[in-house]
Amino acid sequence: MLSRSQLVDQIKQKKSFLCVGLDTDIEKIPAFLKEFPHPIFEFNKRIIDATRDLCVSYKPNAAFYESRGVKGLQSLIDTWKHLPKDCLNIIDAKRGDMGNTSDMYARAFFDETASGMSFDAITVSPYMGHDAVTSYLAYPDKWVILLALTSSAGSKDFQYLTTEHGFLYEAVIKKANTWAGADRIMYVVGATKSTEFTNIRKFAPDNFLLVPGVGAQGGSLAEVCRYGMNKDCGLIVNASRSIIYASNGKDFAEAARAEALSIQQQMQAELEKAGVI
Amino acid sequence: MLSRSQLVDQIKQKKSFLCVGLDTDIEKIPAFLKEFPHPIFEFNKRIIDATRDLCVSYKPNAAFYESRGVKGLQSLIDTWKHLPKDCLNIIDAKRGDMGNTSDMYARAFFDETASGMSFDAITVSPYMGHDAVTSYLAYPDKWVILLALTSSAGSKDFQYLTTEHGFLYEAVIKKANTWAGADRIMYVVGATKSTEFTNIRKFAPDNFLLVPGVGAQGGSLAEVCRYGMNKDCGLIVNASRSIIYASNGKDFAEAARAEALSIQQQMQAELEKAGVI
Repeated sequence: MLSRSQLVDQIKQKKSFLCVGLDTDIEKIPAFLKEFPHPIFEFNKRIIDATRDLCVSYKPNAAFYESRGVKGLQSLIDTWKHLPKDCLNIIDAKRGDMGNTSDMYARAFFDETASGMSFDAITVSPYMGHDAVTSYLAYPDKWVILLALTSSAGSKDFQYLTTEHGFLYEAVIKKANTWAGADRIMYVVGATKSTEFTNIRKFAPDNFLLVPGVGAQGGSLAEVCRYGMNKDCGLIVNASRSIIYASNGKDFAEAARAEALSIQQQMQAELEKAGVI
Repeated sequence: MLSRSQLVDQIKQKKSFLCVGLDTDIEKIPAFLKEFPHPIFEFNKRIIDATRDLCVSYKPNAAFYESRGVKGLQSLIDTWKHLPKDCLNIIDAKRGDMGNTSDMYARAFFDETASGMSFDAITVSPYMGHDAVTSYLAYPDKWVILLALTSSAGSKDFQYLTTEHGFLYEAVIKKANTWAGADRIMYVVGATKSTEFTNIRKFAPDNFLLVPGVGAQGGSLAEVCRYGMNKDCGLIVNASRSIIYASNGKDFAEAARAEALSIQQQMQAELEKAGVI
C-alpha cells in the first residue's frame, strides 16, 4: 500500500517518477536465462534489483504472464513477492466488469490470501462504468488507474468521439472524479498525446496520470512534463521495452540500469525545473 | 472451433440457444465437494455433464478462477479440457488492450500450446479500439464478442452517451462491423435492455448477440426473443447463477439440469414461434 503522500515522498526522495514496465516475453529475454528453472522470474528479479533505486513504480503486464498458463502465473506471483514494497506496484490488467465479477478480480490482484498477490493498483477499462471500479475501491489504500486516453492507434476509434460531456475520454474522467478523489484514482494518458495534457489538467488537476508510450512508442518525456506535471509531480511515466530489453546479452541488467538512470536523470531535471524538488 | 454455420446447426439440433455461465465460486458450491482434491473442477465437470445436451455454449468467467491464484487457473484449464467441443466455448475475460498485449492475451486464451487452453471465443472491452480485437481475429475461426450494451447499473455511465454516431454502444457496433463480419464478431447486449434489441438489429442484423442478464439479473427471455431474434436465431442467452446454484445440496447437478431443461423448453418454443426450427 502506498498512499498519495507516500508516493509523492518517494518521487522526491528518488528524484524520479519512473515506472518500469515488466512486459516480460520469454522470446525476448537473454538466451542464457532459459537454463534457469524460472527464467521469467529470474529476468524480472535481476531487472528489479538493478533499477529499484531509480524508479518509484513497477508495472507487470498481466497478459505476458497469462500467455504462459500456470507457470506464467507463478512467475507473476513470484515477481510480485520480489517487488520493493516502497514502490507503487501496479498490475496492468485492464479488467473492467460488473460488480460481482470485479469483486473476484479484486481478490485476484489485491488479496494475497486468495491469490498470492496484493498489488497497490490496477489498471481498469471504464466501458462498464462504476461497477467496474467500486470493487477495487473497497480495498482501503488501493488505487484504480482508469484508462482515459491511451497511446496506441486504436485510441482514435472511440476515445475521441464527441459526447455531451466532451470527448469520450473527458467524459470518463469527469464521471470517475465523482466516484473517488485524487487519492484513489489515477488516469492512463498516453505520452503520444502530450498536448492533450493541458486539457486534462483542467478537470483532473490533482490526479496522478500514468503515462505509457515514452520510449518504444515514441512519446517525449519533456513534452509530457511541460503539459502534464503538477505541483506534486502528478505523473508516473512508464517505460517497458526500452529498459528491460536494452541488451539481450549477459549484461542485460546493467544495460537496463543504464537506461533507467538516463531516464531518471532527465526526470530529475524536469522535477527541478518545475520546482517539485 | 465452431463456425457460424456450425453454431446455427447446433442451435437447430439441440433446439436451444442457452449458454451456461460457469461463474463458479468456492463459497457457493455444495459443501461436500470441498472434500475433493479439485472442488471447483469437480463442480464444473458435473454441471457440464448434466447440461451438455441442453445448451450450445459454456462461458467460464475468468475472474472467478483468477481469484484463486494458481489453483484457480488450473481449475479453469481442467474445465476447458472437459468442455464439449461441439459447443461454443467462451472465455468471459473482457480483455481489451493494445496490439502487442492483446497478442499475449490471445495466446493465453486461444493457444493451447502456450497456456493449456483454446477457447472458441473471448469477450473483449472496446475502449482501446481496433488494437484490442485484431490480435484475436488473427486466429482463424475464433470469435471476438465485443461489449456493446451491458446489463449492470454501470452501463448507464458511458454506453448511453450521445456521440456523432449515436449512443456510444451504437458507435461501437458500427465501427466494429468494419473490422470483421458476422462470422467473426458477436456483441454483448444485456437482457435487461430488451427494447434496445430492435434498434441494434438495424445495424447488426446478422451478428449473434451474447445476452447475459436472464434469470438472476431479471431480464425476460420472451422479450429478448421478441426484439432480438433473427432468422438464424442470432442469440446466445447466458444464464449462470440460476442454473449452477439451483441447489446447493448433493442434487446440485440434477437441479442445474432441471433449470437448464426449463430454459431449453422455453427456447424451443421461441425458436418454433420464430420459424427458426
